[in-house]
Amino acid sequence: LRRGEGERSRAGAAGQLPVRDRFAQQLDFIVAIDKLKGVLRATRLTDGSRDENSAEHSWHIAVMAMLLHEHAAQEVDVLHVIRLLLIHDIVEIDAGDTYCYDEAGQADRDVREGMAARRLFGMLPDDQSSEFIALWEEFEAMQTPAALFANALDRLQPFLLGRHRDDGDWRFRATSRDQIMNRMAPVRSAAPQLWRYVEAVVDDAFASGRHGAGHPPGVAGRPPGEGG
Amino acid sequence: LRRGEGERSRAGAAGQLPVRDRFAQQLDFIVAIDKLKGVLRATRLTDGSRDENSAEHSWHIAVMAMLLHEHAAQEVDVLHVIRLLLIHDIVEIDAGDTYCYDEAGQADRDVREGMAARRLFGMLPDDQSSEFIALWEEFEAMQTPAALFANALDRLQPFLLGRHRDDGDWRFRATSRDQIMNRMAPVRSAAPQLWRYVEAVVDDAFASGRHGAGHPPGVAGRPPGEGG
Repeated sequence: LRRGEGERSRAGAAGQLPVRDRFAQQLDFIVAIDKLKGVLRATRLTDGSRDENSAEHSWHIAVMAMLLHEHAAQEVDVLHVIRLLLIHDIVEIDAGDTYCYDEAGQADRDVREGMAARRLFGMLPDDQSSEFIALWEEFEAMQTPAALFANALDRLQPFLLGRHRDDGDWRFRATSRDQIMNRMAPVRSAAPQLWRYVEAVVDDAFASGRHGAGHPPGVAGRPPGEGG
Repeated sequence: LRRGEGERSRAGAAGQLPVRDRFAQQLDFIVAIDKLKGVLRATRLTDGSRDENSAEHSWHIAVMAMLLHEHAAQEVDVLHVIRLLLIHDIVEIDAGDTYCYDEAGQADRDVREGMAARRLFGMLPDDQSSEFIALWEEFEAMQTPAALFANALDRLQPFLLGRHRDDGDWRFRATSRDQIMNRMAPVRSAAPQLWRYVEAVVDDAFASGRHGAGHPPGVAGRPPGEGG
């Protein structure tokens, strides 16, 4: 560090670590989360080329929040929704993506993700660590209007990609209408206007036999379908 | 649509399109930008497995904004910075990623990206189309504190990934120190505290011969290096 230059950022002035130590911790975290780009989801990209990863998925839903917040049943703080969305999948770096219809995987998901949150968010300076853990917990709890809307977008996005494949060849992986409707339920309460679209797509799928593609994710040759 | 339900969202109430038409336009755009996941940059992921795409890059720098805005020389509106970052690369869906040290590519980049902005953002309802074009133009112009800070993060991120590869094998692709310093210049003005880190890494690279890896992106077998 050059002499004469202040060693504390604006945040550092509040009795926290010197700025170089804060940045060192932030840097470690920023490099560590590069690994989210290697966590694959059970959603195929619209061009059919490959499965989506959780980092690019997080970007996609954050842009959706910028556009779709006007449809939220209750007015939401867009920045807060975006913050929830940008960090909600980071725990998957350690815990992996748990497919939404995998009952065994869902059973110990909380434990795996809790450990992941402590390790990963724990790399940050204390105040930011607490802030990120609180955001992740809020997203998971789905109790605030912002978290409910964020979850609605998180579930709507793979639904949209599954429905709008470039080749027009789409079908739901789930066998039962209830399974899909339960998964999409946050859309009904958080954005009723968008729920009409969900209902119409599901009705169309079941009327035309576009459901029950069957194979769980990870099985070679699985057909295109909606993710989780 | 079911009878009796309102046809306008809160935004729709302001004399705009009925909500179903607005959502139809938003949906087309949301599906179209899935293609950003297929636009590859000249940055290798830290695990060396592949090049980064522009969608996951946009996610990464948005998280960086959440963490690093405290280091901005001038206080910035974090939501605004994040909005700039989330949409700044969308034009690459049509225009491609232009490597930062590709002089021929940079020459017609403005024209290609301007056309892309009109086509892609033009898919949105008029108010959101204007909003996204204005955000993109603000990012490119680098005249506001938010845009300058956003550009600093956009340039810092590939620098960080290049320096912090898992295998410790890093070097700059650029041959000249000036080339790197000019590329990183927004960091110096937007976040002087972080500039010290940049200088230290570059000094180390040139002291130890970790520079001039040479090959432009797109050439098979090109070595790992920082992106553009």
